[in-house]
Amino acid sequence: MRTLYHSWVCPFSRKIRIILGEKKLAFEMVVEHPWAPRPDYMLLDPAGRPPLLVEPDGTPIADHTAIAEYLDEAFGDPLLIGLQVRPRAEVRRLIGWFDGKFNDEVTVNLVGEKVFKRQMGGSSPDSKAIRAGLSAIGAHLEYLGALAEQRRWLAGDEFSMADIVACAHLSAVDYVGDVPWDQYPAAKDWYARMKSRPSVRPLLTDSLPGIPPPAHYANLDF
Amino acid sequence: MRTLYHSWVCPFSRKIRIILGEKKLAFEMVVEHPWAPRPDYMLLDPAGRPPLLVEPDGTPIADHTAIAEYLDEAFGDPLLIGLQVRPRAEVRRLIGWFDGKFNDEVTVNLVGEKVFKRQMGGSSPDSKAIRAGLSAIGAHLEYLGALAEQRRWLAGDEFSMADIVACAHLSAVDYVGDVPWDQYPAAKDWYARMKSRPSVRPLLTDSLPGIPPPAHYANLDF
Repeated sequence: MRTLYHSWVCPFSRKIRIILGEKKLAFEMVVEHPWAPRPDYMLLDPAGRPPLLVEPDGTPIADHTAIAEYLDEAFGDPLLIGLQVRPRAEVRRLIGWFDGKFNDEVTVNLVGEKVFKRQMGGSSPDSKAIRAGLSAIGAHLEYLGALAEQRRWLAGDEFSMADIVACAHLSAVDYVGDVPWDQYPAAKDWYARMKSRPSVRPLLTDSLPGIPPPAHYANLDF
Repeated sequence: MRTLYHSWVCPFSRKIRIILGEKKLAFEMVVEHPWAPRPDYMLLDPAGRPPLLVEPDGTPIADHTAIAEYLDEAFGDPLLIGLQVRPRAEVRRLIGWFDGKFNDEVTVNLVGEKVFKRQMGGSSPDSKAIRAGLSAIGAHLEYLGALAEQRRWLAGDEFSMADIVACAHLSAVDYVGDVPWDQYPAAKDWYARMKSRPSVRPLLTDSLPGIPPPAHYANLDF
């Protein structure tokens, strides 16, 4: 069996779950917290940074970007980064946008403060970080909505890993109820399409003890 | 002409410079500061995060990971990520190690504090961050040295983008004189091999006004 070591509500883990779902690859999940990786885990991933994928033959594939690229190269149907060199660069530009810029400006400030810090048993959320996250998200939703309207999917006419990565981050921020969907109808329409995908639906049933998602979380009408 | 928008001593910009050098692609450089991207730059890279590559036909390729993958796909000789799926995952695991873990634990704390903060005209370096960076670098040099001894190059017998990315970060930290090479002879031997490559030598002549590199910086005997 293929095994994914993951952390709940972690956008990088969610990205791999959606990719595995799109490619219809069965897997089991084992929780591994990035802030306290176990010694046994470190033998498989010396960086100590889940997600980690362990293939059925026991080979560990570490690093979220490496896992995503590996899955697209090893299991091509459907191809999620595309075939042509320049469109592939556009998919990866948007992957970098969400895993880099959006993560730094939004996910870390909101999900990091409200979910990870709490799980670590640490201090209360930093209100300055939360204000920064809430203030940054609007411009991202505006940009995402504009792309989705011009192109149908974020990187072009075809669904791609750019949509998956954006959804991984936005579904994590939506878990803490911090996405102002009603102010950004084009982004909301794109997210409604993402929510209805069989690869995404399992994520919407996640519920952490003591940190439940908002009532609308799994609803297709939100 | 191919144009690289870059920031001095930025490891992500240096990575692209080395890749372009390995592939013998001529390019000109334009400085763009990530902390204050100009409006004209934002038209080419809405994320405002150099490096950015503009191809001879005017097409912008943004995001350092997207640029690196693009160059390897578009200009295959020499191939820097390899051909086989699982070895490619190992190259990318180590790219993630240095662009992620090493950057967070070392580069940001040392180069960020001593070079970028100063260029931004901001406050003096945070001594706590510098202590954290100096305390973290040893484990990385130990790991890098072990890989280089077991495998010849970091990801295997062949030189790869993993070596380039590690060199981009270590050459940035060496610019501020914070790499304790003498304590890590295997890492030092690997870096001596990197320093002698024609793709790396141009980086070793960089000198920022007011923030010069240490005297040994470009020496092959260091």
